[in-house]
Amino acid sequence: METIEWLDDVAAIRMIDQTLLPYREKYIVIRRVDDLTEAIRVMRIRGAPAIGVAAAMGMALGAARYSGKNGGDFIKYMDEVAKKLIDTRPTASNLFWAVERQHKKLHRMRNRPVEQIRKSLVSEAKKIHREDIAANRKMGEFGAKLLRRGSVVITHCNAGSLATGGYGTAVGVIRTAARRGLISKVYVSETRPRLQGARLTAFELLKYNIPATLICDSVAGSLMAQGKINCAIVGADRIAANGDFANKIGTYSLSVNANAHGIPFYTAAPVSTIDLSVKSGSGIPIEYRPDDEVRRINGALICPRTIPVLNPAFDVTPARLVTAIITERGVCYPPYKNSLKNLFNGTS
Amino acid sequence: METIEWLDDVAAIRMIDQTLLPYREKYIVIRRVDDLTEAIRVMRIRGAPAIGVAAAMGMALGAARYSGKNGGDFIKYMDEVAKKLIDTRPTASNLFWAVERQHKKLHRMRNRPVEQIRKSLVSEAKKIHREDIAANRKMGEFGAKLLRRGSVVITHCNAGSLATGGYGTAVGVIRTAARRGLISKVYVSETRPRLQGARLTAFELLKYNIPATLICDSVAGSLMAQGKINCAIVGADRIAANGDFANKIGTYSLSVNANAHGIPFYTAAPVSTIDLSVKSGSGIPIEYRPDDEVRRINGALICPRTIPVLNPAFDVTPARLVTAIITERGVCYPPYKNSLKNLFNGTS
Repeated sequence: METIEWLDDVAAIRMIDQTLLPYREKYIVIRRVDDLTEAIRVMRIRGAPAIGVAAAMGMALGAARYSGKNGGDFIKYMDEVAKKLIDTRPTASNLFWAVERQHKKLHRMRNRPVEQIRKSLVSEAKKIHREDIAANRKMGEFGAKLLRRGSVVITHCNAGSLATGGYGTAVGVIRTAARRGLISKVYVSETRPRLQGARLTAFELLKYNIPATLICDSVAGSLMAQGKINCAIVGADRIAANGDFANKIGTYSLSVNANAHGIPFYTAAPVSTIDLSVKSGSGIPIEYRPDDEVRRINGALICPRTIPVLNPAFDVTPARLVTAIITERGVCYPPYKNSLKNLFNGTS
Repeated sequence: METIEWLDDVAAIRMIDQTLLPYREKYIVIRRVDDLTEAIRVMRIRGAPAIGVAAAMGMALGAARYSGKNGGDFIKYMDEVAKKLIDTRPTASNLFWAVERQHKKLHRMRNRPVEQIRKSLVSEAKKIHREDIAANRKMGEFGAKLLRRGSVVITHCNAGSLATGGYGTAVGVIRTAARRGLISKVYVSETRPRLQGARLTAFELLKYNIPATLICDSVAGSLMAQGKINCAIVGADRIAANGDFANKIGTYSLSVNANAHGIPFYTAAPVSTIDLSVKSGSGIPIEYRPDDEVRRINGALICPRTIPVLNPAFDVTPARLVTAIITERGVCYPPYKNSLKNLFNGTS
C-alpha cells in the first residue's frame, strides 16, 4: 500500500483516499493542482510529512500542466501554484517547507526552459519522498533505542505510513521497536473527530501484526493511573524553536496525563517539521475545521443540529512536558532551544 | 419531558428512550421486570440517580405483575426481582441503594397481604422519585454558591434531568447558577463512546437556553491551557468513603487536566450515590461494556472489524483531585472521610 506516488508516464499523483479507509482501499489519480488542494483540504491525504510530499509533487504537477511559453509567465503561474498549495492547511510546517524547497529550485532555474524545470521539480519531489521514508527509518532506529522490552505504548492519531511518505514517524518507531521484540502492546486512541487512530493506525498495526487495542480518547489517563501504559509516542505537525509542538487535538491532554503519571512522552518527526522561525507554541497557527466533523460521523448526526461546536484540529504541547524529540538526525533533549538548533548545525 | 414516571392506571413505567435522543423523543411503557432490566442494560435509561429511581419502580413493577398467593412465595419472587434489578449494571450505587430500600420495606411488611405491600412499594418508588428531584434542586442551591459570575464550566457525560428523577445533579447546579446569571458558557464534552454529552447534555442545555458549545473529549485540556474554562462539574456513579468517585470514562483525565491548570473540579451527587461500605476507589467495580459501542457509531463501523477494543464505562477520580462534593445535604470538603461520614450523622 503506497500512501502517495508520482506517476511518470502520465505526470500525475496517485494516492490512497484516506477518507475511505479502512472500509475501502481506493486509489485516486490526481492530474490537476485544484484537485490536489481539495484532496489536502478534505484530508484524502493528511499527516504533516505526507502533506509535505504531496505539496512537493503538487509543484511538479503544476509545472506538468503548464501549457504556456517559457519565461516570466511560467514563473508567475508557478508562484500561483505555490500559493494555492500553501493555502490548503495552516498548521503543519512540512507543507511550507516542501513548497519552499521546490520554489527555491524553481527560482534558481528561472531562466531555463520550462521542460527542464519541470523535470527538475519532478525529480526533486521524488527525492523529497525518498528522503522522507529514509528519515522515518532513521527515526525508527533512534526511537527504538529509547524503549525497553515489554513496552506498552500509547499513540494518538495516525503518525504511520499513511501520514508520511512511508513507514511512519511515531508508528515508525513502534514498528522498529516491535521488530526488535520490544513492544508488548500498543493502545490506539481513536482520535475524534476524524478518527484517524481508529481508522488508520488500527488498520496499519493490524497489517504489521503488532498487538494493538483501540480505546476512546478519554480512556488513556485512566489506563496510565492503573499502570497499564509505560510510554507515549506521537507525531508532530510543527515544532517551534523552544520545543513546543503542535499535533492532533488531544495530544496536549495526553501529555498532561503522561506527565502526571511520570510516563515518558515522545514526539517523532522529521526535521522538516521543525520551524525555527516560530519561537514558541503560541506562534503556531491552529486550524479550526468545520463543525460537521464533530456533529456528524459517517454522515449521521450525533447531536442536536443546532448546538454550537468548537473544532480545533490541533493543540500545542509545551516543551516542558516532552521527554525527547526523535528526529532522523538524532534524539533531542531539553533544553530544546539548543538541541533543536544544533540539528541544523550538524552538531547534534 | 419526563425522564421516567410511574403510571398508576396501568401499574407500569413510562420512560423516554434515551438511546434515540436527540433524534427522536419516543416514550416507551414498560410492564415487565425483564423489559426494565433490558432497558437499563442497553441504556434506554441511564445515569446513576435515574437508574436508582427506575430500580425502585422496578420493585413496584415486580409486585404489580405478581399473580400468585400471599406469603413466602411472594417474598421469594420479590427477592428474585431484586436480584434481577441488581444484576443489570455494577458501578452506580444508587441502583443497589434503591433496591435495598424497597427490599427492606418489603421485608418489614412480609406478613401483610400482597396488595398492601404492592401499594406500599409503589408509593415508596414515587417517594424516591420525588426525593431525587428535591435533592437535585437542593444540590443546585448549594452548588450555585460555589460559582462566580462569568463562569465558563465544562461538564462531561450527562448529569442532567435525563440522568436523574428530574432537574439534574451537575447540570442541576449549572441550571440554578444560570438562572442567577452566573454562567457565561458551558462546554459539553461529547463523551465517547455513547455520546451522552453530544446527544443528551447538548439537547438539555439547548432546551434550557443555556449557552453551550460541544467539543470532542480530547479538547478540554487544551481549552484549560488557554484559560478558557474556569470550572468543571460532573456527576458521580459511586462515591467511596474517602471521596474517590467513579464516573463516566474520561472524568479522571478531565480531573487531571483541571488539577494541572488550577481549575476547581466538583462532583454533584445525591447521598444515595455515597457508598461508605467501599473505602476507596479501588473497591468500586468498573463495568466494561461491549466492544461494538466503540467500534460502531449509529450502527456504522468506524475501525477495522477485527481490532481489539477496551471499553471501560467508568473510571475513578481520586479524592485528592476533587475540590468539593456537592450533595443535597451540603457541600463536602476534604478530608472527605470525615465530611462524607458527617452527612449521615446530620452534622455536616
